[in-house]
Amino acid sequence: MSTPICIFDTTLRDGTQGEGISLTAEDKVKIALKLDALGVHYIEGGNPGSNSKDIEFFRRVRELKLQAKLTAFGSTRRKNSSCEQDINLKHLTESGARAATLVGKTWDFHVHTALQTTLEENLAMIHESLAFVKNSGMEALFDAEHFFDGYKANPEYALAALSKAKEAGAAWIVLCDTNGGTLPGEINEIVSRVVKEIDAPIGIHTHNDCELAVANTLAAITAGARHIQGTINGYGERCGNANLCSIIPTLQLKMGYSCVTGEQLGTLTGVARYISEIANVNMPVNQPYVGNAAFAHKGGIHVSAIMKDSKTYEHIEPSLVGNKQRVLVSELAGQSNILSKAQEMGLEVNAEGMKSREVIDRIKDLEHQGYQFEGADASLELLLRDAYGGSEQVFTINSFKITVENNEGRVSSEAIVKVTVAGEQVYTVANGNGPVNALDNALRKALVQFFPGIRDIHLTDYKVRVLDEKDATAAKVRVLIESTNFKDTWSTVGVSSNVIEASWEALVDSIRYALIGMDKDEDISPELLQTNGLVNH
Amino acid sequence: MSTPICIFDTTLRDGTQGEGISLTAEDKVKIALKLDALGVHYIEGGNPGSNSKDIEFFRRVRELKLQAKLTAFGSTRRKNSSCEQDINLKHLTESGARAATLVGKTWDFHVHTALQTTLEENLAMIHESLAFVKNSGMEALFDAEHFFDGYKANPEYALAALSKAKEAGAAWIVLCDTNGGTLPGEINEIVSRVVKEIDAPIGIHTHNDCELAVANTLAAITAGARHIQGTINGYGERCGNANLCSIIPTLQLKMGYSCVTGEQLGTLTGVARYISEIANVNMPVNQPYVGNAAFAHKGGIHVSAIMKDSKTYEHIEPSLVGNKQRVLVSELAGQSNILSKAQEMGLEVNAEGMKSREVIDRIKDLEHQGYQFEGADASLELLLRDAYGGSEQVFTINSFKITVENNEGRVSSEAIVKVTVAGEQVYTVANGNGPVNALDNALRKALVQFFPGIRDIHLTDYKVRVLDEKDATAAKVRVLIESTNFKDTWSTVGVSSNVIEASWEALVDSIRYALIGMDKDEDISPELLQTNGLVNH
Repeated sequence: MSTPICIFDTTLRDGTQGEGISLTAEDKVKIALKLDALGVHYIEGGNPGSNSKDIEFFRRVRELKLQAKLTAFGSTRRKNSSCEQDINLKHLTESGARAATLVGKTWDFHVHTALQTTLEENLAMIHESLAFVKNSGMEALFDAEHFFDGYKANPEYALAALSKAKEAGAAWIVLCDTNGGTLPGEINEIVSRVVKEIDAPIGIHTHNDCELAVANTLAAITAGARHIQGTINGYGERCGNANLCSIIPTLQLKMGYSCVTGEQLGTLTGVARYISEIANVNMPVNQPYVGNAAFAHKGGIHVSAIMKDSKTYEHIEPSLVGNKQRVLVSELAGQSNILSKAQEMGLEVNAEGMKSREVIDRIKDLEHQGYQFEGADASLELLLRDAYGGSEQVFTINSFKITVENNEGRVSSEAIVKVTVAGEQVYTVANGNGPVNALDNALRKALVQFFPGIRDIHLTDYKVRVLDEKDATAAKVRVLIESTNFKDTWSTVGVSSNVIEASWEALVDSIRYALIGMDKDEDISPELLQTNGLVNH
Repeated sequence: MSTPICIFDTTLRDGTQGEGISLTAEDKVKIALKLDALGVHYIEGGNPGSNSKDIEFFRRVRELKLQAKLTAFGSTRRKNSSCEQDINLKHLTESGARAATLVGKTWDFHVHTALQTTLEENLAMIHESLAFVKNSGMEALFDAEHFFDGYKANPEYALAALSKAKEAGAAWIVLCDTNGGTLPGEINEIVSRVVKEIDAPIGIHTHNDCELAVANTLAAITAGARHIQGTINGYGERCGNANLCSIIPTLQLKMGYSCVTGEQLGTLTGVARYISEIANVNMPVNQPYVGNAAFAHKGGIHVSAIMKDSKTYEHIEPSLVGNKQRVLVSELAGQSNILSKAQEMGLEVNAEGMKSREVIDRIKDLEHQGYQFEGADASLELLLRDAYGGSEQVFTINSFKITVENNEGRVSSEAIVKVTVAGEQVYTVANGNGPVNALDNALRKALVQFFPGIRDIHLTDYKVRVLDEKDATAAKVRVLIESTNFKDTWSTVGVSSNVIEASWEALVDSIRYALIGMDKDEDISPELLQTNGLVNH
């Protein structure tokens, strides 16, 4: 039997201290449900004494019947006072949560500088506050703030604080590297000492200020800690908290510990991406285990080896964490990447044939011009379909014209497009926030009557990259566009010395890709189409 | 004396394997200069046998007289062949680089599965290839690919491969955790064994697939490695390479090793941000040491403690790595920087005055809208001059209009501007490669008759970054323009949801800045100006 590790998720509390992260009560409820399904053991929901949003969350979450223990966060009581008089402790015990985590000082420097009280009073604050929470019928956890810095400065005092928490009946004593400055060797040494001296269940809470939060957590587990506090995607103040999305799979797949079931682990990538969507924070493409590039292969040699045996360049089977292998196409890549891509799409490809030679040459030539297909799967797919006969030209562009006018400070943008669809010429005009938005609007207006499904498509990302910067405003630019229809997401590319033309190219590819397999609307008014084959807007 | 550690940067080679990273030869030259100033000891430039871009880079970089050793990358020779016949080894020795890194197999599984040759032939490939490079007069380094996986599978064979490299005279033998799946404890144990068995300088090269690349690098150093391969910002294939921006400060500030000078370490944040701009990859706000939020405090208890003593919530002094503290809720943040900037410019500033309050509020408001003055000194200077009375409005813009037309595939761009200069209204039209180039041409045409010195100014860089990517083509964009008059270089910024307007704003700032102190031409033809006060082009 493998040793179980208790997972304490603080995405909803410490995670929201991260810059740019702000969650509504509704967001928090959605995230709590996902965390519960993932199988974490504690969900720290927030500080019910601090704001109305957290109060609402605690009220709503009570109805959800979570498997995980919902936990409220607070501090030890104020100095020179009593728990009964402490309004924050009162809110905590009234929150309806099954457990409460109290943070307290263990670093003598902080007791003097931040709290400005005596070492003895701080010990009393720890003991009385935890006992107060426990007497209210809740489980009490102790977060030993700055424990490692405190231990290095005054080990006797830091250990005395832990003993007080144990005496008060804390269910877990959690050692916090609050400033994130401690190294794995120190963590290992100090946790080993604590486990020896304090006869209570020990936890670990680390921050990523040295890019060591994951390593520090693993070092604490190796030294005998059995409880981990962290956040999904490592959200948290400054450089973030320990990233549970990296810790859980490493503990479970590589170190023989048990955190969640294998089935739950297989949902990890989905949970991480869902929470990044709710938090409205772009997920780094290179995030370990769950990132979009975590099992993406770019180098030609790597790809040809991967096709022989994926273990050659993959440290785990991606599906164990719900992720998948991707083969990127780029100038560094050989022919094997492109052919495996075409095979993925179900196209009939003969690796030795003339056609394949031509396709590779065409892609190399486009890359030389500045196209980049690794971030533009859909443009690559269109190119391969055009070559191997898997696509149909459903519309053609005859011309477009855009105008941007600044008249005494009032700026307007307008686009006109002329498109042929199913033998009909369509002529539309639209305005927008800027020239590209106006073009997008005009093109959709031209096509929506034929393909009403286009209404469901929207653009989610637009990136402009200037190539050959030496030429400044006359330089080539590359535009990448990401689109979604709420089910799938795809990316397209355009390159030109004219930013409008490059954007247009990527826009047209995005729509062409969306139309693959989309039905033309049967209900379209024939009169509308027969106005001299020209529809004006 | 602290032990020196050799820093080998592979941003320009392994870093470009990262998804979304694509560098031109010009980008690579700029980055090489920054890395050299940072004080890294090796700069791996790329694979001179693989593509024309890398060949151009190696040609150009030869003229730069770098302190660092420029290094070319390649593989051991092909199986059952000779080094003399190997075209890639030939390119390597002709690259003009002072050193070459050769990657070779040390994992028996890879020799059989990927190379499909015998274990003996692979050892011969390693020995002969390194000796060949060394005989050509270059320093030879050996990258022992998959060394840790290889050692775990067949320690004798993995060590035999290292011995071959040593016999051939490799300057460094670098142990690679190519798949990024090894844990710090394993790294420590295996590197300790290697250091004991192989009497040669040992290096470490890790990947971040378990979010442990930094910890694994530090573990190898603790076990006796003395050379680190990594990239700026951790760029690299899949989850990236070991991040030098986290490793260098930890080794130097916390572990007592010596990598670069203290002064060079103080430029780290600037180097990291510069390279992220060149690579056009958004830097995660929470990146350790160098991220914008690395020393940002979000409020409440932390902020009040920080104001008592910053050591309470900061693991190092931010200026040691060129970063700074930010208090996200405090209105005091940044004020002293801005005022000292104005004083530098010789403006009369009263820090307590109403004016200063207004200026700070204006800058905060602009930053909130997406302006970024760190990369746009000239726009900040104009703003301060406008506020404190150090500038003169030499021209005003009345209106502009641009048109981009695609007629059956033929694209043209035209711009019209109406400007008032010295009481005269000037009305010009010009075309260009794209709308922004056309605007630039029309504005210069309007001003050159008054300020012939404008001919000497040209734009050297033009960057577009999309803010709020979720809104796609309706999102705000930030444009940064860099200009030069062959003596000085300056940068300006514009922000708008309209890429044309944002570009225009940055263009106008660039010209306004250039005109500070520039003489109006006395020789200008009076007739030209008096044509009804309106000059047509």
